[in-house]
Amino acid sequence: MFDPVEKLKEFIRHPSISTDSKALAGMKGAQEFVSDLLSSLGFKVEVVKTDLHPIILAERAGDPAWPHVIIYGHYDVQPADPVALWQTAPFEPEVRGNRLYGRGAADNKGPLMTHISAVARLLARRPDLPLRITFMIEGEEEMGSPSFPKFLTAYRDRLKQADFVFLSDTGIPSEDQIVLTCGLRGLVLCDVEVTGSTSDLHSGLHGGVLRNPIQAVSELCASLHTPEGRVNVPGFYDDVLDVEPWEREQLVKLGGNADKYREFLGIKAFHTAPGFSPFEAVRFQPTLEFNGIGGGYQGEGTKTVIPSKAFVKISCRLVPNQTPAKIRELLYRTIRERMPADVNYRIIDQHEGTPYIVVPPHRSNTPKDQSPVLARAFDAADTAIAEVFGKAPLYLREGGSVPIIADIKRELGLDSVMMGLFLPEDNLHAPNESFHLGVMEKGMKASELILERLAGK
Amino acid sequence: MFDPVEKLKEFIRHPSISTDSKALAGMKGAQEFVSDLLSSLGFKVEVVKTDLHPIILAERAGDPAWPHVIIYGHYDVQPADPVALWQTAPFEPEVRGNRLYGRGAADNKGPLMTHISAVARLLARRPDLPLRITFMIEGEEEMGSPSFPKFLTAYRDRLKQADFVFLSDTGIPSEDQIVLTCGLRGLVLCDVEVTGSTSDLHSGLHGGVLRNPIQAVSELCASLHTPEGRVNVPGFYDDVLDVEPWEREQLVKLGGNADKYREFLGIKAFHTAPGFSPFEAVRFQPTLEFNGIGGGYQGEGTKTVIPSKAFVKISCRLVPNQTPAKIRELLYRTIRERMPADVNYRIIDQHEGTPYIVVPPHRSNTPKDQSPVLARAFDAADTAIAEVFGKAPLYLREGGSVPIIADIKRELGLDSVMMGLFLPEDNLHAPNESFHLGVMEKGMKASELILERLAGK
Repeated sequence: MFDPVEKLKEFIRHPSISTDSKALAGMKGAQEFVSDLLSSLGFKVEVVKTDLHPIILAERAGDPAWPHVIIYGHYDVQPADPVALWQTAPFEPEVRGNRLYGRGAADNKGPLMTHISAVARLLARRPDLPLRITFMIEGEEEMGSPSFPKFLTAYRDRLKQADFVFLSDTGIPSEDQIVLTCGLRGLVLCDVEVTGSTSDLHSGLHGGVLRNPIQAVSELCASLHTPEGRVNVPGFYDDVLDVEPWEREQLVKLGGNADKYREFLGIKAFHTAPGFSPFEAVRFQPTLEFNGIGGGYQGEGTKTVIPSKAFVKISCRLVPNQTPAKIRELLYRTIRERMPADVNYRIIDQHEGTPYIVVPPHRSNTPKDQSPVLARAFDAADTAIAEVFGKAPLYLREGGSVPIIADIKRELGLDSVMMGLFLPEDNLHAPNESFHLGVMEKGMKASELILERLAGK
Repeated sequence: MFDPVEKLKEFIRHPSISTDSKALAGMKGAQEFVSDLLSSLGFKVEVVKTDLHPIILAERAGDPAWPHVIIYGHYDVQPADPVALWQTAPFEPEVRGNRLYGRGAADNKGPLMTHISAVARLLARRPDLPLRITFMIEGEEEMGSPSFPKFLTAYRDRLKQADFVFLSDTGIPSEDQIVLTCGLRGLVLCDVEVTGSTSDLHSGLHGGVLRNPIQAVSELCASLHTPEGRVNVPGFYDDVLDVEPWEREQLVKLGGNADKYREFLGIKAFHTAPGFSPFEAVRFQPTLEFNGIGGGYQGEGTKTVIPSKAFVKISCRLVPNQTPAKIRELLYRTIRERMPADVNYRIIDQHEGTPYIVVPPHRSNTPKDQSPVLARAFDAADTAIAEVFGKAPLYLREGGSVPIIADIKRELGLDSVMMGLFLPEDNLHAPNESFHLGVMEKGMKASELILERLAGK
């Protein structure tokens, strides 16, 4: 059996930045590292070509009667900029205290190595384990998984034989409190670009005769929320799933401190949709945010210009059961209705993602037509996590979006068991990213137990 | 007598870009060129040091009983960027057709050379002309004349001996239609910067708990106009001077074609304050414009961030008798009242300028306590322009701002006779700037006649 931490260091040393065309060697190195490791564990490895970075598909086949789990992960990482802010080089992993530092340590190389190591231990101990396992590890997660839907379609028939997906790419509040993430928000993104005059105008010579595109964009933006903090797009909330009482109870157990959260954000006061605490709002409510705005002169001092163009970048986070198609339609209709007739504008589609929810079987008041293996997986996770971490897991929706989870549900009909493993202080996407080695060790034990119990005796 | 066009070429060859610290040699060259030229005409030249670029003060003294005119101009020019768009090099002047091309040809070296040449011709013809002339030529106009108010204060006692200021730094609609500009708008500028969270936030993990600074800025901006197109700042219009009937009559004579103007701007429709045509709105109405807005991610594609900061750059154009101090106070009060309590913000002062109006004596229904020399100057200008250009001048306010004109009025008590000489197609502040040589030649004749008639027999 290999040393998981040493193996993780080796993995991190490959600078696999998927968005950096100069990092192709690092991408190839990381892919080959994972492929070789899984081969050495007896998996049949297939490297599936895509338009950009290949997907690793590694199978441990077996009796069709055995449960079948797909373990998802990604071998690509975020860029390391700004490198100057790292205490040690991002691709030269180093253990300090009980943490391993390096780019990708927590997102997602550490959690992925946690599962690979758990599988390695388990299979070493029980070579005949009656469990089919498929690793499905992509290299484009940090760029929005552009090749993933096409891959799912192409491998649909084979992958839908599985019972569920198991992964660790979500967060936990503290070292001993694991979260089984059971909901993710979806996304709809677009840009709105407004054009007034053909070119920038002198605000003295022409000011007062036309509507400034910045004014048009501002008036649109200002119309998109009510003063109380709801999204002011007719029909926006129509499909929002009610929050079940057990979900609010789970949140109470999370025990977040609103004052500390406010201080962490550095804001003067919260501004949430009416009737929702900040912890609820971020998980249960859809949003409409402005991610960027621009137009005219933005430098030091002044330039008295009426700009020709202004734009805003809008993103909506969706909750179950909103759909990107309907929200996009409602949003665009609202923009069209509110845009004044004296300017030109265009709406530019950006990407989208469907929200996701899985109701853990033992929580559901309204039992659903779920796979019995999924129910067993949740039960196994619940008990294994409680045993290893000393605390029962919490079942929480998360505010973020992992669009591939809904893609998998739609394309393959499979739900996901998401065992969060990274902490707020892990610095994902930031300098000095690290992974907690205590969490890693316990995560391996829990993952090993879950898979073993899933397989049955 | 020198050749005015050759002299103008020589003047343009000095790249006197006041805002460019690498253009100091060009600034010095242009200053010395003007100083030497005026010395050679018999003027007593003083180069007044300022914190940055000196002001040229050149005097033709005489009997205190003689009328005394100050001729204003500036020897600095705008940067030539983008140089690639120039047909010929910006500082290698070239005559093509009846135009002289080069940076500063129209703003302000050509019009200034027009007056210097007129004075040269006049003094050559009438060496004993009973007229005191002071040239006051600055080198910081294109950077907002920062040293000018201090200079006016320092030279107040000497300069206020004059009767009026004569200059050409405003526009005309066509080669044969001179405008005597009798009003300029003022300015109040500020930035508003809004801060939400300490740093940019992930819009999934935190979206829904706080007010986005872009939303706060947009809501502020959207509140600052009524749907009808008036500025929505309480008290904003209180001091606006009524437009006199003769002013509207003059505008009718200008005969602007609204459709052509709309096409020139490239806009779908005008959006003016109610009751004002576009030609009226730009001259008679104050405005509040957004010159720039920025916040969050502005690149290609998407970045789902809630930005920490957003800002807007606001400028108001003021009309007589609004004052920058009062408008600033009203605007700031409005911003403070409307800014939500859950964000931090600061208002950053930028510069300002007082609006200006001079009522030509023969137009005034309510005669004012004006200098008899000023009245004579207007009469001389009216007749000389009609004779030389074949059409009586129009008396119009202009939408732009030349803050030093109000500074001169306040500091020295002197009004200005502004004889417009540049055409819309002269491309001021843009590539391929040029000056119309026919307008220059006629402008010289008119200027010579005006000064001669002012002096009397």
